[in-house]
Amino acid sequence: MSGEMMPNWLYKRAFLSPERTALEFETEKISFFELHERALSLARKLASFPIKEGDYVSFLLKNCPHTVELIHALEYIGAVTVPLNNRLAPAELRFQLEDSNTALLIYDESFSSQAIEAAEPLKSVKAMAIHELGQLAESDFQPKTEINLDSNHTIMYTSGTTGSPKGVILTYGNHWWSAIGSALNLGLQESDKWLCTVPMFHMSGLSILMRSVIYGIPVVIHDAFDPDKANQAIHSNGVTIVSVVSAMLARMVHALENKYPESFRCMLLGGGPAPKPLLEACTEKNIPVFQTYGMTETASQIVTLSSEYMLKKIGSAGKPLFHAQLKIEKDGAIAEPHEVGEIVVKGANVTKGYLRRKQATEQAIKNGWLYTGDLGYLDEDGFLYVVDRRSDLIISGGENVYPAEIEATLLSHPSIVEAGVTGREDERWGQVPIAFVVKNDKSVTEEQLKTFCREQLAGYKVPKNIYFVHELPRNGANKLMRRELIQFLKEDKRC
Amino acid sequence: MSGEMMPNWLYKRAFLSPERTALEFETEKISFFELHERALSLARKLASFPIKEGDYVSFLLKNCPHTVELIHALEYIGAVTVPLNNRLAPAELRFQLEDSNTALLIYDESFSSQAIEAAEPLKSVKAMAIHELGQLAESDFQPKTEINLDSNHTIMYTSGTTGSPKGVILTYGNHWWSAIGSALNLGLQESDKWLCTVPMFHMSGLSILMRSVIYGIPVVIHDAFDPDKANQAIHSNGVTIVSVVSAMLARMVHALENKYPESFRCMLLGGGPAPKPLLEACTEKNIPVFQTYGMTETASQIVTLSSEYMLKKIGSAGKPLFHAQLKIEKDGAIAEPHEVGEIVVKGANVTKGYLRRKQATEQAIKNGWLYTGDLGYLDEDGFLYVVDRRSDLIISGGENVYPAEIEATLLSHPSIVEAGVTGREDERWGQVPIAFVVKNDKSVTEEQLKTFCREQLAGYKVPKNIYFVHELPRNGANKLMRRELIQFLKEDKRC
Repeated sequence: MSGEMMPNWLYKRAFLSPERTALEFETEKISFFELHERALSLARKLASFPIKEGDYVSFLLKNCPHTVELIHALEYIGAVTVPLNNRLAPAELRFQLEDSNTALLIYDESFSSQAIEAAEPLKSVKAMAIHELGQLAESDFQPKTEINLDSNHTIMYTSGTTGSPKGVILTYGNHWWSAIGSALNLGLQESDKWLCTVPMFHMSGLSILMRSVIYGIPVVIHDAFDPDKANQAIHSNGVTIVSVVSAMLARMVHALENKYPESFRCMLLGGGPAPKPLLEACTEKNIPVFQTYGMTETASQIVTLSSEYMLKKIGSAGKPLFHAQLKIEKDGAIAEPHEVGEIVVKGANVTKGYLRRKQATEQAIKNGWLYTGDLGYLDEDGFLYVVDRRSDLIISGGENVYPAEIEATLLSHPSIVEAGVTGREDERWGQVPIAFVVKNDKSVTEEQLKTFCREQLAGYKVPKNIYFVHELPRNGANKLMRRELIQFLKEDKRC
Repeated sequence: MSGEMMPNWLYKRAFLSPERTALEFETEKISFFELHERALSLARKLASFPIKEGDYVSFLLKNCPHTVELIHALEYIGAVTVPLNNRLAPAELRFQLEDSNTALLIYDESFSSQAIEAAEPLKSVKAMAIHELGQLAESDFQPKTEINLDSNHTIMYTSGTTGSPKGVILTYGNHWWSAIGSALNLGLQESDKWLCTVPMFHMSGLSILMRSVIYGIPVVIHDAFDPDKANQAIHSNGVTIVSVVSAMLARMVHALENKYPESFRCMLLGGGPAPKPLLEACTEKNIPVFQTYGMTETASQIVTLSSEYMLKKIGSAGKPLFHAQLKIEKDGAIAEPHEVGEIVVKGANVTKGYLRRKQATEQAIKNGWLYTGDLGYLDEDGFLYVVDRRSDLIISGGENVYPAEIEATLLSHPSIVEAGVTGREDERWGQVPIAFVVKNDKSVTEEQLKTFCREQLAGYKVPKNIYFVHELPRNGANKLMRRELIQFLKEDKRC
């Protein structure tokens, strides 16, 4: 490994600004020095297990200080963290435990049945509740106070287009450059305070924890997303930056009574294009929205639209972060402006590949460029528009149909609060789009919605059926999972 | 080379924020897009010369937009910049031109006699006035829009203890990490504006130019330091950060009538420990002073004391920047707190060595640690106190003056057989060099010796006084003990 060496981040942060607040959770405030002490104590307990450098340790935890302490404890050991999505079924968890060669699974008591069911058949994995770990004796060990940016920090699973999850390898360097790229874009103020209500087992949440120690700013932790509580954190607790996806932002805006204070400076919006009416509502309420594009493979955002362009470049995800590069490829050549092609990105925040998946890695990364599988185009000024995640593409009668576009249309109807579109097999057209919508208290019929769509979309884009449902399938990051929509039909989840 | 790849900084900056101001000089304002266009045009002219990737190009210029354009033009070509101190004598310049294997020397008209005198005897060097370069035809070439952080960016000469100057190799990565380390320490605000009144041929000035393109903030350029003009830039032109050395700061404080506005957030103070009364005056006037320690070899600051500790830790240079590390070594072991030893530093901003000086490089850098030759200690909280620069370094008005270099010059005079140089306290410059010499039977006066020095040395290196003595203080090994020279004055050992 030839990567740059630097001090362990928490270690250095506790040395530089020991008294600054690192975490706020409920009524508790934890300084960087305390966090360092707690992580070190936990590391000594893990060392007694023994967990050693290079081991893989999974966790099935909630958003809480314990999770942060564990992540840093593993850094002090030099072990690799495998964050598990706590909404997965035991079989799905088991796959990831086995695939990552996990030695130890740390779980929260409330997930004990899933954890035990997942780990039990695997001889190589020991499962332990976090409170049990706390009771272990401390073992003497030499904490790693220096890190190599090329060392592995995290393995995070993502399904991608193939269906079978792959472990994305994220090095310290990937996290570092992601944090630096974000700071060069958003700036860095002494008064910054980041709200983490997105899961720490996803990049969106984990990246906030990394930024916190690198920047020396506090994270306010919410164990679950609640729009009122999130708004209150901005209004009364000095939060200056919040990471959200569209569905969360919509609920926050809906629940918002008074404008946010001036000190609130960034609503970092990821997880797919935002509907125009939502952005307009944000402008009206002076909410500084920064739209972003990123994925697990890029250790969070890699493209960001600053708020000054929020409406001028509506629908755009912005430009690549300072250190990053982007191109649109079509049939192996660079696409013209406005020509849709595959989004290809490069930068030190980009993963070096998938754990033990040589072929998938070679397919995805060529000459340092990551082929995202997502479709998009650049406008004449170089702003990126993500047309769709490739896997969701519907091809109907030879025409490309992009679900996001139809969803945006449905969402612009006053009676609709959520919308998901997918393709259904069709004898004549190959595929046709169908939609699932959640309506508000205003009455509307399927026919009225189709008429509404027909007014704004080409005929082939109008959903053949529009089903009313109580909720849409979303993952832990609250991102719409379009591929599961078709299950709704089979299970008759319509209301 | 295995370094990280990233977009050329100016190229990327002009893409991300084309309309933002990059430079302010007198009444002129230049945007990042304009700066990019000008640098590109200059690069095309240099290419026609031809200057190509890997060539060394020196400049003998003032602080002005041309200098910034040239530095970025050389980046677009991939040539290495050799900034020359415009106060050096022709013989000193010639040494650096030859040692760096410079292909082209670009000079300002006002320095034409020095430039021509320096370059003329060297067949390999072509000298050209900057306005002549501007008149060349543009040649087609492919600008380097992507850089490797391991590539060489600058060669900057520093004398060190040996007398003969060495070219410090500074890579893109050294400059990058220096800028990032500074941002993580000082924060980064959209309203930031940095005043550059320190020379661009020094690290202090050059580092401001690098930060400007990386952060996307304007630099206000002053061609010379004037305390009233500097104060005015803070009061009326929105400058938020200024880089100074003690002597400059003292004059600014002396000239200051009204307190600086709240928006002024950082007086970055380098170039040696500051006198306590000056710091107290700053506190009284609410001036946020950030004391730093750094050198050419660390691409500007590597240790910084934030203003909250300005008086609490008076005399301290602070703690190493986030990515950097520091230790004090005494007799090959880590020193205890408060024990004086050699300051040893490590970090990605540290040079990889001296140009074509394998032995000097191996002596200075061991296992990635740079042995600075400076003496200091850490207190119990880990704050650095620099006790003495490189045993005998004289810092005069922010310029490093190396006794060995002046002694070598004096010794080259036919009447001088021994020479010793040391620093004397000086109200205006902090220190000035004075010399003690032993002459042979040939007659020579102090004035003749000064004239002799003036022909070969920069003005600030010419000893303010030259005293004739019978002998110099030497230890048992016959080594000159420079620190005892000052006793000579008090004891009147002059002959």
